[in-house]
Amino acid sequence: MRTVYVNGVFCPETEAVVSIFDRGFLFADGVYEVTGVLDGKLIDFSGHMARLRRSLAELELREPAQEDKLLSIHRQLVEKNDLVEGMIYMQVTRGAADRDFLFPADDTKPSLVLFTQSASLRDKPAAKTGLRVVTVPDLRWARRDIKTVQLLYPSMAKMEAKRRGVDDAWMVEDGCVTEGSSNNAYIVDAGGTLITRPLNHAILHGITRKAVLRLAAESGLAVEERPFTVEEAKVAREAFITSASSFVLPVVEIDGTTIGDGRPGEIATRLREIYIDEALKTAV
Amino acid sequence: MRTVYVNGVFCPETEAVVSIFDRGFLFADGVYEVTGVLDGKLIDFSGHMARLRRSLAELELREPAQEDKLLSIHRQLVEKNDLVEGMIYMQVTRGAADRDFLFPADDTKPSLVLFTQSASLRDKPAAKTGLRVVTVPDLRWARRDIKTVQLLYPSMAKMEAKRRGVDDAWMVEDGCVTEGSSNNAYIVDAGGTLITRPLNHAILHGITRKAVLRLAAESGLAVEERPFTVEEAKVAREAFITSASSFVLPVVEIDGTTIGDGRPGEIATRLREIYIDEALKTAV
Repeated sequence: MRTVYVNGVFCPETEAVVSIFDRGFLFADGVYEVTGVLDGKLIDFSGHMARLRRSLAELELREPAQEDKLLSIHRQLVEKNDLVEGMIYMQVTRGAADRDFLFPADDTKPSLVLFTQSASLRDKPAAKTGLRVVTVPDLRWARRDIKTVQLLYPSMAKMEAKRRGVDDAWMVEDGCVTEGSSNNAYIVDAGGTLITRPLNHAILHGITRKAVLRLAAESGLAVEERPFTVEEAKVAREAFITSASSFVLPVVEIDGTTIGDGRPGEIATRLREIYIDEALKTAV
Repeated sequence: MRTVYVNGVFCPETEAVVSIFDRGFLFADGVYEVTGVLDGKLIDFSGHMARLRRSLAELELREPAQEDKLLSIHRQLVEKNDLVEGMIYMQVTRGAADRDFLFPADDTKPSLVLFTQSASLRDKPAAKTGLRVVTVPDLRWARRDIKTVQLLYPSMAKMEAKRRGVDDAWMVEDGCVTEGSSNNAYIVDAGGTLITRPLNHAILHGITRKAVLRLAAESGLAVEERPFTVEEAKVAREAFITSASSFVLPVVEIDGTTIGDGRPGEIATRLREIYIDEALKTAV
């Protein structure tokens, strides 16, 4: 039985509830962050907090608490749940108010919900076998840079991948890959250049993406931030994804086409190692 | 204090809660209907139920109960809340399960939430003054025909309208109006033809829209279902909206341009009357 956090109270997960009038429930009027945990410590917590503040600001949502208070809640959840490795999920919504498309009064208290998920992040079978993905059209709203809980389409895309017997879906818009269902997407071209979509409204501004691009550059890799097509991806030397819970995971098949020799690429594998080393060193 | 319905139980609104793990809260993985109530009776209940079933089917969501059971809950809510005029909101989600983009096990019980809102539907000042609207880009996801709770953008659009001192926003895609923030949009051209967008994935399949188009045809009006541009709308003889809670409401200004002579149009006013007559006659 997990202990979770809901609006100021730590409670058993079975008692963790929000009002049916919460705008997170009625309007998907909320944002979230997922922070990875290794050895009981939080990976890039300040990065996640910076992105949370940006999401909140874009939606004119009030900050539910200061960063040090949120850090304290995260740490208490790690302790109360003996969490060694996994994730902490945090959601902020515009709070509960009678249903109205207009935002409620400014003094409406935002809702704050956190819970842990225990998971093996370091030892993932997919790090050794690679992921197989299929492409699906990207039908999401146009502001994917805001990390809202409007996750129905990514959820449908993941189900479509499952139905087609693979691990994940890459979403495609105007012929180019935007991102995975819950991760950023990358390829390495024949010349060894790492290519990933630039930051704008079309994709999530991944915290892991930022760290991995920095580590890639520090390793002397050429990095190009531009959209890439599905065709480019299919003939790439390597392909991979990044996310707060996947870190770096190689992709070895796209729509049935084998990438490279079908085994996890060297660069993806090396970036995964470097990222985990760095995460262990800097986690708080 | 309202009595609301949550997962099998009628309870005071202050005690009405769902799990923080409800997929409606975490993934916006849910759909809804709003049924109008006049003289304590439900307007076009079977129409709303048919659309609900369609939304559920599109998302592979289980039906939470049979139509007669849902009708009974609606009627009990009317009675328990002495509701004479207003709306009943009903939301169905994929239920509570540990957070995962993949849909939970098939035997996960869908959540069912209903509540009433008392409101004056017949006597609306806007029926006499008309609504003023502004246009905003339509940034929603591509499956607007499914009535999901992913309502953040419509909510933002309504706030934008408020900031700009008007009543509502009309959303625009590729130069054409899709719909209002929570209603279907119509114009009447110089020749007296009623024009509204056809049904496909771009717009909600309005229950009131269906009834009003039928009544319009029965009244001998020419009806054309095709997209119309913002420019066409600005030079239209009339403009109006329909929804389950607005019925038919005239629009008298679009982006600062006066429509017709700036007063509610004859056709919109007449359709509102006919619709209300019909609703009163057929409500159950």
